[in-house]
Amino acid sequence: MMTKNKIREAALIDRRTIRVRFSEVDSMQVVWHGEYIRYFEDGRESFGNHYDGLKYIDFYNNGYMAPMVEVTCQYKQPLTFGEDAIIETRYIKSPAAKIMFDYTIYRASDNTVAATGSSVQVFINSQTRELELSNPQFYLDWKQRWIK
Amino acid sequence: MMTKNKIREAALIDRRTIRVRFSEVDSMQVVWHGEYIRYFEDGRESFGNHYDGLKYIDFYNNGYMAPMVEVTCQYKQPLTFGEDAIIETRYIKSPAAKIMFDYTIYRASDNTVAATGSSVQVFINSQTRELELSNPQFYLDWKQRWIK
Amino acid sequence: MMTKNKIREAALIDRRTIRVRFSEVDSMQVVWHGEYIRYFEDGRESFGNHYDGLKYIDFYNNGYMAPMVEVTCQYKQPLTFGEDAIIETRYIKSPAAKIMFDYTIYRASDNTVAATGSSVQVFINSQTRELELSNPQFYLDWKQRWIK
Amino acid sequence: MMTKNKIREAALIDRRTIRVRFSEVDSMQVVWHGEYIRYFEDGRESFGNHYDGLKYIDFYNNGYMAPMVEVTCQYKQPLTFGEDAIIETRYIKSPAAKIMFDYTIYRASDNTVAATGSSVQVFINSQTRELELSNPQFYLDWKQRWIK
Repeated sequence: MMTKNKIREAALIDRRTIRVRFSEVDSMQVVWHGEYIRYFEDGRESFGNHYDGLKYIDFYNNGYMAPMVEVTCQYKQPLTFGEDAIIETRYIKSPAAKIMFDYTIYRASDNTVAATGSSVQVFINSQTRELELSNPQFYLDWKQRWIK
Repeated sequence: MMTKNKIREAALIDRRTIRVRFSEVDSMQVVWHGEYIRYFEDGRESFGNHYDGLKYIDFYNNGYMAPMVEVTCQYKQPLTFGEDAIIETRYIKSPAAKIMFDYTIYRASDNTVAATGSSVQVFINSQTRELELSNPQFYLDWKQRWIK
Repeated sequence: MMTKNKIREAALIDRRTIRVRFSEVDSMQVVWHGEYIRYFEDGRESFGNHYDGLKYIDFYNNGYMAPMVEVTCQYKQPLTFGEDAIIETRYIKSPAAKIMFDYTIYRASDNTVAATGSSVQVFINSQTRELELSNPQFYLDWKQRWIK
Repeated sequence: MMTKNKIREAALIDRRTIRVRFSEVDSMQVVWHGEYIRYFEDGRESFGNHYDGLKYIDFYNNGYMAPMVEVTCQYKQPLTFGEDAIIETRYIKSPAAKIMFDYTIYRASDNTVAATGSSVQVFINSQTRELELSNPQFYLDWKQRWIK
């Protein structure tokens, strides 16, 4: 009999703490909603450092770029200048030639959720700028390495 | 007999042309995906100028702020430095105490769709920062004025 | 006898009006000081459209880039959300292989000076990224055309 | 007899490492020149954490704001996506009712200077928004504490 733990695959998650900058705060004294898109990017970058082989330079060296095709953000609680936030970036498994992440941003002081979000990227050939319909080999290798 | 034109309610739509700035373009030579959130804000601002009574100052003068609770963006075609884009901002009717818009961003040169998106804002009391569960009077007045 | 008008060379000046965006305003309710660097860039872009032949694409097509080597900004009066500002961009003549501008940003409503500034750019070869010590031919041609 | 070491007063310096973000890089593949103004702000914030009593909240709690009146930046070497940079923030002593800093930004990998800069802030009363011509008491206390 399979246990729940066995069934549930280990998730690939990265957590990174950032501090809210003055220039990110708007006239309502809270982080401007557009800045969260940058926080998500910080999260992906940190994820790529954590799970080696999925950094921007890895895409580049293999002849690919990974432009964004969709991003969403749901705002729950405001963040204010100077406070710490935790960006949690969770890899979403899929057989498609896409890279998908979910995000949760926590206020560090009390762990309340400040925002959630998602992103979907595709692969394009750096030279031709054509969409890649199948998974690039380097990405399949990365999956093989990190996803049991 | 009702005609199609009569049945279909007039949509509230604003169109504004912007030019892509150098600082908005990323190392892939296209507008960085996060900048579209700013374009949507430009669209809302232009909408508020067009349909008088829904500008930031109107919220402020009536004791409300309208923070974002959700934003989404779907990227279709890249925009490059120096080209003109048209931000189309469409008001979504709803009885809820929310302000909802859909966006379509067109490349001006050929009218292809560069991106689509959506946003949802709620009302909070400027003083208490509490969520308003019912529509503020000034917003009901604005609806009365502009939505037949 | 030379008249004053003859002696004083015509200055190359561009004026462009912009409207302050919500996302440019900080928690002190005024435009964040770093945004003025973007306004200066808007000014240069507008200048390049006005005095044809000095646009980014002209540099690019001639094999050059013009990175910034110095920028300064002096802040005089704050600008607030939604107000119009005039960016005045003034070309500074020099025999050096540099592009120099002075800027004055005015509050449109009363013509008070909000900020002044300056910038210096040099030429580098797009391929080698080496500094050009003498003026590129296309720039000499541009000077010939616009500076009497 | 006074030694050189005794004569030379200890400088107040803070060093902070940041990593260049994708969104900070422009289409020339290097950090967009305007982003350095944000790096300087990161430097001031880090300085205020290091030399306690000169944080934004300290100004705020004492009824002051410290708007920028001048900023300069000299660009020496480009920074690229993903590399680490060290922001060195040096406090400039002055009897005037001003806060002055010099900045040096180093590429972390080889300690070459990427940029230098300076900033001058003044004090204004948070309520009246009037300029303070003399040093606020809390600032005199901070100087007393940190500057021997």
